[in-house]
Amino acid sequence: MKLYHCADARSFRALWTLEEMGLAYDLALLPFPPRFLAPEFLAENPLGTIPLLVDGDARLTESAAIAQYLCTKYGPSPLAVGVEEPDYGAWLNWLHHGEATLTFPQTIVLRYRVFEPKKGLQVAADDYAHWFAKRTLLADAALADREWLCARRFTAADISVGYALMLAETLGLHDRLSEGLRTYWARLQARPGFAAAKAAQLKAA
Amino acid sequence: MKLYHCADARSFRALWTLEEMGLAYDLALLPFPPRFLAPEFLAENPLGTIPLLVDGDARLTESAAIAQYLCTKYGPSPLAVGVEEPDYGAWLNWLHHGEATLTFPQTIVLRYRVFEPKKGLQVAADDYAHWFAKRTLLADAALADREWLCARRFTAADISVGYALMLAETLGLHDRLSEGLRTYWARLQARPGFAAAKAAQLKAA
Repeated sequence: MKLYHCADARSFRALWTLEEMGLAYDLALLPFPPRFLAPEFLAENPLGTIPLLVDGDARLTESAAIAQYLCTKYGPSPLAVGVEEPDYGAWLNWLHHGEATLTFPQTIVLRYRVFEPKKGLQVAADDYAHWFAKRTLLADAALADREWLCARRFTAADISVGYALMLAETLGLHDRLSEGLRTYWARLQARPGFAAAKAAQLKAA
Repeated sequence: MKLYHCADARSFRALWTLEEMGLAYDLALLPFPPRFLAPEFLAENPLGTIPLLVDGDARLTESAAIAQYLCTKYGPSPLAVGVEEPDYGAWLNWLHHGEATLTFPQTIVLRYRVFEPKKGLQVAADDYAHWFAKRTLLADAALADREWLCARRFTAADISVGYALMLAETLGLHDRLSEGLRTYWARLQARPGFAAAKAAQLKAA
């Protein structure tokens, strides 16, 4: 398997999953954003986006899908929640929620605050920083009396939502998070798999 | 099962899946956006977003997750692609891609063109209309020589991406789509399950 990745970008979900599972992989570290800074990557992924996971004939570009793919295809793994478990629905929901609801809005903040600040779209950035903060309510409620989001164990759902909290820290949005979510973020960072993923991207740099 | 839905909103993915599978359900049709126009719904889903699918103790809020949930939990269904099939990874990827990559950018267009046009953020709306159009490249390529996105049959992946094309039509973005994607959209609309979902929301109105 080969993973195309940019340091601390959403492809970190894939890297983190690979490390949690102890799977063998090649890591290609690209500058961000690769579609401008590594145009040769367009031959691999015409969108120029990361992640790209190449696994034989399978080519996946969605980070939360990759987390689900790895732990269901190369399991059995505690990261996967089976269809027969009571939290199967919750698990699928968090996998999608972490990216579609909690990460995308932050990319608008990233774009207009960090990459294109001169475009004068601070109001749109502020709108989506606010939108993101309001949407953290479900995760906050889920963690009120639990260590992990579902199934009473660390799963790929935590990797999906956890990356959203990682991006929020990068963007300086942690002051919008509840105490419970900040504690959860500390718990996620304490995982050996998280540290191994951080070390792997540093080594590849 | 009970589905909370707004006409032609992203919860249409859940409704369409229910109808494709012939499952029994109750439909609660809400005005859009429900968090302002149906505040009693906040007691059911504190985010005020649709969809909400309630199935016993399971409560799902992500439309693509619901499509996956229904066809894997209440199958066997041809809408699901099994882990042993060659296109399993592609299927998961399209499920996420349809929402995270192809729908979210359009909601920014919807917000600043339709709901808050006086905010003066047309440039942000234009940015994400363009962003969306560029991201349709993978689906366009996948459909160049195939009727459906993966596994040589209609699956939940087509429901996920199909809804993005439905929203694009509502927003007047179809002139940005390839001929191949417009033909695919016509093929999707011709499904009896699609027509049944349209009829179900009309009947509930």
